[in-house]
Amino acid sequence: MRLSAFALSTTKETPADAEIVSHQLMLRAGMIRKLGAGLYTWSPLGMRVLRRVETIVREEMNATGALEVLMPAIQPSELWRESGRWEQMGDLMLRMHDRAEREYCFGPTHEEVITDFVKRDISSYKQLPVNFYQIQTKFRDEIRPRFGLMRAREFIMKDAYSFHMDEADLDREYHAMRAAYTAILDRIGLDYRVVAADSGAIGGAKSEEFHVLAQAGEDELAVSEDGRYAANIEAAITLPGKDERPAPSGELRKVDTPGVATIADLCQSLDLPVETTAKAIVVMGDDDKPVLMVLRGDHTLNDIKAEGIEGIATPLKFAEENVIREHFGAGPGSLGPVNTNVRVIADYAVQNAADMAVGANYDGAHFVNFNWGRDAIEPEFADLRNVTAGDPSPDGSPLSVLRGIEVGHVFQLGDKYSKALELSVLDENGKAVTPQMGCYGFGVSRIVAAAIEQCYDDAGICWPTAIAPFELVIIPIKADKSATVREACEKLYTECRQAGIDVAYDDRGLRPGPMFADAELIGIPHRVVVSDRGIDAGTLEYKGRRDSENSQIEFSLEALRQKLSQG
Amino acid sequence: MRLSAFALSTTKETPADAEIVSHQLMLRAGMIRKLGAGLYTWSPLGMRVLRRVETIVREEMNATGALEVLMPAIQPSELWRESGRWEQMGDLMLRMHDRAEREYCFGPTHEEVITDFVKRDISSYKQLPVNFYQIQTKFRDEIRPRFGLMRAREFIMKDAYSFHMDEADLDREYHAMRAAYTAILDRIGLDYRVVAADSGAIGGAKSEEFHVLAQAGEDELAVSEDGRYAANIEAAITLPGKDERPAPSGELRKVDTPGVATIADLCQSLDLPVETTAKAIVVMGDDDKPVLMVLRGDHTLNDIKAEGIEGIATPLKFAEENVIREHFGAGPGSLGPVNTNVRVIADYAVQNAADMAVGANYDGAHFVNFNWGRDAIEPEFADLRNVTAGDPSPDGSPLSVLRGIEVGHVFQLGDKYSKALELSVLDENGKAVTPQMGCYGFGVSRIVAAAIEQCYDDAGICWPTAIAPFELVIIPIKADKSATVREACEKLYTECRQAGIDVAYDDRGLRPGPMFADAELIGIPHRVVVSDRGIDAGTLEYKGRRDSENSQIEFSLEALRQKLSQG
Repeated sequence: MRLSAFALSTTKETPADAEIVSHQLMLRAGMIRKLGAGLYTWSPLGMRVLRRVETIVREEMNATGALEVLMPAIQPSELWRESGRWEQMGDLMLRMHDRAEREYCFGPTHEEVITDFVKRDISSYKQLPVNFYQIQTKFRDEIRPRFGLMRAREFIMKDAYSFHMDEADLDREYHAMRAAYTAILDRIGLDYRVVAADSGAIGGAKSEEFHVLAQAGEDELAVSEDGRYAANIEAAITLPGKDERPAPSGELRKVDTPGVATIADLCQSLDLPVETTAKAIVVMGDDDKPVLMVLRGDHTLNDIKAEGIEGIATPLKFAEENVIREHFGAGPGSLGPVNTNVRVIADYAVQNAADMAVGANYDGAHFVNFNWGRDAIEPEFADLRNVTAGDPSPDGSPLSVLRGIEVGHVFQLGDKYSKALELSVLDENGKAVTPQMGCYGFGVSRIVAAAIEQCYDDAGICWPTAIAPFELVIIPIKADKSATVREACEKLYTECRQAGIDVAYDDRGLRPGPMFADAELIGIPHRVVVSDRGIDAGTLEYKGRRDSENSQIEFSLEALRQKLSQG
Repeated sequence: MRLSAFALSTTKETPADAEIVSHQLMLRAGMIRKLGAGLYTWSPLGMRVLRRVETIVREEMNATGALEVLMPAIQPSELWRESGRWEQMGDLMLRMHDRAEREYCFGPTHEEVITDFVKRDISSYKQLPVNFYQIQTKFRDEIRPRFGLMRAREFIMKDAYSFHMDEADLDREYHAMRAAYTAILDRIGLDYRVVAADSGAIGGAKSEEFHVLAQAGEDELAVSEDGRYAANIEAAITLPGKDERPAPSGELRKVDTPGVATIADLCQSLDLPVETTAKAIVVMGDDDKPVLMVLRGDHTLNDIKAEGIEGIATPLKFAEENVIREHFGAGPGSLGPVNTNVRVIADYAVQNAADMAVGANYDGAHFVNFNWGRDAIEPEFADLRNVTAGDPSPDGSPLSVLRGIEVGHVFQLGDKYSKALELSVLDENGKAVTPQMGCYGFGVSRIVAAAIEQCYDDAGICWPTAIAPFELVIIPIKADKSATVREACEKLYTECRQAGIDVAYDDRGLRPGPMFADAELIGIPHRVVVSDRGIDAGTLEYKGRRDSENSQIEFSLEALRQKLSQG
């Protein structure tokens, strides 16, 4: 591609409304342009990257035997009502009426439509398993679209949906998809983690997320030292402590703590290490009675874990202050497990703790030297909290907390949609069976932004070669004054193209500075400079995008190819 | 592809609600499935064809230097208000509000968005010309979606928009696009015509359509014998007659024609050939005065031509009966050019006619032996009518009328959108210039249906090889009983794939009848049958999709390749 004919449009200025690096660099490089809130046009430069991602995703999906389809973006409301999601999706779903006043949405996802499609065409076990995928435009009406493509409203997803006769076969396909996602991310060349994910309201079903590691990631990932355990922090589990609980060292003692409302206040007021304090949170049970949850002072409640406990209201509901006062005689900030007759559930982290400071159920008072069994009956113990860096992982080694950008999610749906939409197929014995489903999403447009978040420096983007808009750029020096340079560039450009190298030739007639700056900003992995001096010496000046120094190589296609093959 | 893993779903029954062949065959072959009115899911079989079309279109567009972009489907109303089309598009445009109550549409086309995109990034003549294209999903809320993909509501278009410093450069790109469309249709391998199109309300600008010839086509095309002149019947022109007008042969004579309201009535009542009659139609001038248009009795008024005449109201407005009675003293059915003081415009076809029968401007009466100049003053003559088969084309040879399906449209827009959206760039002298625009649409999903309308027989679809879902199908005979057949098929299948042949292997374990029927229905161009008898004889049974007979070829990849290369 000759850059003079490529409509490249770069800027030095960082756009004021772009908060994160990928958004800034995509705008500066002219990869995208904003049309409206969360709506972007992909420029020719952006499209080259997007198409590369799309091709890798398609090839790896095809390699698993998944079959490409294309479903409409506009979906009738009826199917969504059958699944119960027409109401549930709320304002996230862009809704509309056609000229006949029928209701539709711009599909944020396609479980309903694919299940309906399968219902029409598949009726026998002989036709299963099957996995349909599409690479398609989705719309989610985010409350606050931001971060460019990271949370755009219109975006491109690869979504796949598989159908199976039983759970074992679903599990097999799930692992095939997991392997395909691994292959996709390996080919793109990014550092990523596969983490256990919250299976949320659906419960039970297996679910993992693929995260590209980056500082700007919105998710926290808990990863064990040996990498064998990895989970989204929402889903990372803690185990009961293995140590013995120490014996109490003193009597339970009530102390006045006027004005103390937080754990930080308490530590300061009594001069206590935070690890020796416990906090108490009151949530509602599904019988509408309050339940007291006790955690170590420096830990935070994990709502998903809490609502997963039997008898607790889902979604999690915190007790109103009047309910708290009625049952505890005190307000939040002074609550604890002593002298209460509500259900008490304590986190594993306080199971084997002794001599804790806890709220006294009197406003402005706490107990010190609190011990389970002696000062209150032994409560239920459970995994209630978010893990933190340094916590032991289930396999023993300590957890680190990393930040990641979710680019993929594999999910065992079970029969949620097949049941709701009454999909059934006949098994070998002619018996109707509700198929098991899996779904597998991959953020095709989002991974372009995620790649930048992981691969950039002060000068701009540093694309992994597999998704770079060009592999190589040829930059001429003083082409306006040297026919030799022009001819050498044209010849090299032609040779590169014939050799199948995806080459850009900067024939825009700019000074070297702006050409170098653009090549670095848009992140072309390899650069060669053609000058009269080099031609005289029989050399090309080569620089890899991540190299700190130039190097001279022989002025030949062969020498250049060797450089390119090195990365 | 092994058909056992391809989710093929064919039916013998013709679906009741499918009116045209392509819709019927796409449903029977299981290429598409209906989700709602004018909304279709593409199955794996359909996708293979769609992707082939898409690839050809993309390659040919890239070859012209056009640059691929991707614009959002969802577009804010503001730009459409600037161009004046927010109201104009009416119910054809699917409109919606987001959660913040802002107005959007699902873009039926992208002139506004691309002009806005160019406005942000292009400011100098140095950046022009440029041509941006996308392959993207559109939505048009048709009053009556029908004919499957032929008039679907959600569909896939390749739309391109070019920007130029002057009309000459626009004309150059227009011809490059015209050539690209020709290349696309030649590669796909369809019989088509490029016809002059109505340039409609925009006026002046050049515009041509690409039509795939097919009986089911909704458009009529007037094509001259030598093919040098071709136009949509809406736009096909007629010229003034070259013959001399004969001398009158008798006196103007008024005859009673009670109850005669149509030309057919008149011919029957007076026993006249229709070619000797003239009809009169009253339209309104833009000064709100009536204008009489006179055409030969068997000709029809072309509204677009009529409204194109200076002084005629646009859009064309027919006179109300009370206006007609006021000015002519008679009602429609008895009108003519004698004794009237309104403006009269007559079609070229009656310019050199003598002794015509015309309305007398008395109810229930006509004149015979009417002659221009003698019985009424010479009117203005103009091209007012739709051409018919046999009419002379502008180059002299007679016109045929063909039916076509519009799959492409190239259009010189001029400055309509660049002006409305205030796009300007600086020329070499630093002067602001409003760029000229062209737009170029190609129906990517529609051409799949159009290809079927042109290429089918009683057994099903006969794909042109370039867009066939598979090039070749291997059909085993009694594979369940013969390990030899199974092994020979597996070996041939593997060899074909290694040789880059796009092969389907029908390993579904069906009887030969259904396998043959499916292969013909889905239109695979080449078929080989593997049987024990053939293996013993060292032969494959070959049949091209259009062949009436089988032939035996040597059982070798080489012999097979030779067959494939023949068509």
